[in-house]
Amino acid sequence: MAGKLYFTAGPTRLHPAVEPAMRRALAEGVASISHRGAGFRRVFERATGRVRELLGIPATHSVFFLSSGTECMERIVQNCVREQSLHLVNGAFSERFHRIAESLGKRAARVEAEWGEGLDTGAVVVPDRAELLCVTQNETSTGVATDLGGLAAIRRQRPDLLVAVDMVSSAPCMEVDFELVDCAFFSVQKGFGMPAGLAVLSAGPRALERAAALKAEGQTIGSYHSFESLAAKAAKHETPETPNVLAIHVLGEVCRAILAEGVAAMRERTAQKAGLLYEALERHPALSPFVADRALRSPTVIVGRAHGGSRAIIGRLAEEGFVVSAGYGRYRDEHLRIANFPAHELSQVRDLVDAL
Amino acid sequence: MAGKLYFTAGPTRLHPAVEPAMRRALAEGVASISHRGAGFRRVFERATGRVRELLGIPATHSVFFLSSGTECMERIVQNCVREQSLHLVNGAFSERFHRIAESLGKRAARVEAEWGEGLDTGAVVVPDRAELLCVTQNETSTGVATDLGGLAAIRRQRPDLLVAVDMVSSAPCMEVDFELVDCAFFSVQKGFGMPAGLAVLSAGPRALERAAALKAEGQTIGSYHSFESLAAKAAKHETPETPNVLAIHVLGEVCRAILAEGVAAMRERTAQKAGLLYEALERHPALSPFVADRALRSPTVIVGRAHGGSRAIIGRLAEEGFVVSAGYGRYRDEHLRIANFPAHELSQVRDLVDAL
Repeated sequence: MAGKLYFTAGPTRLHPAVEPAMRRALAEGVASISHRGAGFRRVFERATGRVRELLGIPATHSVFFLSSGTECMERIVQNCVREQSLHLVNGAFSERFHRIAESLGKRAARVEAEWGEGLDTGAVVVPDRAELLCVTQNETSTGVATDLGGLAAIRRQRPDLLVAVDMVSSAPCMEVDFELVDCAFFSVQKGFGMPAGLAVLSAGPRALERAAALKAEGQTIGSYHSFESLAAKAAKHETPETPNVLAIHVLGEVCRAILAEGVAAMRERTAQKAGLLYEALERHPALSPFVADRALRSPTVIVGRAHGGSRAIIGRLAEEGFVVSAGYGRYRDEHLRIANFPAHELSQVRDLVDAL
Repeated sequence: MAGKLYFTAGPTRLHPAVEPAMRRALAEGVASISHRGAGFRRVFERATGRVRELLGIPATHSVFFLSSGTECMERIVQNCVREQSLHLVNGAFSERFHRIAESLGKRAARVEAEWGEGLDTGAVVVPDRAELLCVTQNETSTGVATDLGGLAAIRRQRPDLLVAVDMVSSAPCMEVDFELVDCAFFSVQKGFGMPAGLAVLSAGPRALERAAALKAEGQTIGSYHSFESLAAKAAKHETPETPNVLAIHVLGEVCRAILAEGVAAMRERTAQKAGLLYEALERHPALSPFVADRALRSPTVIVGRAHGGSRAIIGRLAEEGFVVSAGYGRYRDEHLRIANFPAHELSQVRDLVDAL
């Protein structure tokens, strides 16, 4: 596994800030400190402060640490839905959010688009009884990015509707207007280039009020990871359980490195690298971009369709030291997926393009 | 924080195998591999295989990875309890198990002992409607170890009752007879000396059957971390979500190191170190063991009562480089708690005893 360059959709190439931060943290005993002491509270405050700055999360919204994007989906449904949720489904991860709501006993409605196609958030007709709208900003399975601009119209249409955004593979590269979003979440092994095992969930005041109302009605909103429990601890810069302290520390260091580059510069670099990758797919005799509509093409997960199958191309890239992801699910052997996160340098993308 | 020796109750001193294993794993790309590939399945199989060998978990029981001991409590209640659980409560962590069952809407009965006292498992009268008995093998808050020998009598009394054992601070130092235990769990930041952020839950066939029965009745048993979902993935050496891959890998390496010493030798060393620590408390003019009954004294969490308050002693030890835990909750300023895990060497315990 050594010496390879991971362009996989996550876990992926580690951000260059990760290894030095971990080494230093281990040497300094960060993994041994108490999660109920001042040292940990500083780690928590630093990491959440930088995540807020990087993503533009306002002070009105809490920032919680969970263990995976999948856990975030479960906790959002438990804390925000009495009976009915609505899901925009256009791939495997938006599908997962829907399935989780169903397995928690909710009536989970869905508006659907084919894999590779997008959904117009502004045109969604929200059923009267829906309490939460779940949108996936970037479908990691298909490489379709969803424009969240339509959320303003939905807010006017249904002011009481809560909105949850899956930013798992879009953060920190794509923008979210947190004024229109009650819950948003990501896991750290994608855009933040960290080892897996930590997720971040931002929850706004309307989401916390909903959770409190559901609890008052006698609904189970979970135990240690109910929004109520998470918010009470977060207010003290702590977590309900012993968390992944080392990862929270490293997240703070990765955010610092990205902030040092500058958010605008990082996003410009992301767009530039995405341009090179899509261009390479278009020029390639045996490949083409899976997402036909240019406006829907994800800047962070670039999906190519391989005429004649993707296995051979993925294998040849691996021989040259470039690891890319296979297609997802039914497209496993037809697609290849290339991650384009802040950890991926322009020169590395150029090398991958050359190898392609 | 550097250069200190952590005898804290967890997070604690890192096991010497941790840092080299992490360094090597990062260099080899373990944190970048896909959690759906053969490389990860080997990591999973190696870690679960060694945990099984170390703790004596039989092939009949599944081994799942969760993110904290607290999560294990929640998942056990969700998957094993229709209406009523029974909790043996003699400290803060057995209390937490009880509170989690309550917040999940269960009627959680309790048999209680004072902090510092034990509970005779063999003498427990189980209410007719109780479906799950929850026992804490080692109360990290008080340093009381509970003898599980009475579980055989309970099994005869109530063959249908499921039994869950919290091994959070007892594994791998204290034995559990998995024939009498349906669910057992621990988190890795205590006896395994690892950074926090991973927990292990073993679930036997009766627990899986109970979860299936509850689901068939229409009860919500959770979503991605229902026993059904965990078991389906574990059968393929995978996890439902993207897990803490690096920690699973490191757990395998720590288990290898402990197995190399030998389980019997490690437990003998634990008893020897515990003997030195309790002796030191007894000899000390300002300290005495909190747990009066010698038979109940935990080998892994040694709790001392400080006549005149523990703050000054804890501060003086810290100045000499030894970090011990304060008392828990109401005993914060009266007690000190000293961890005695496999990562703590005999010579280090001798140094701590000298400093005391």
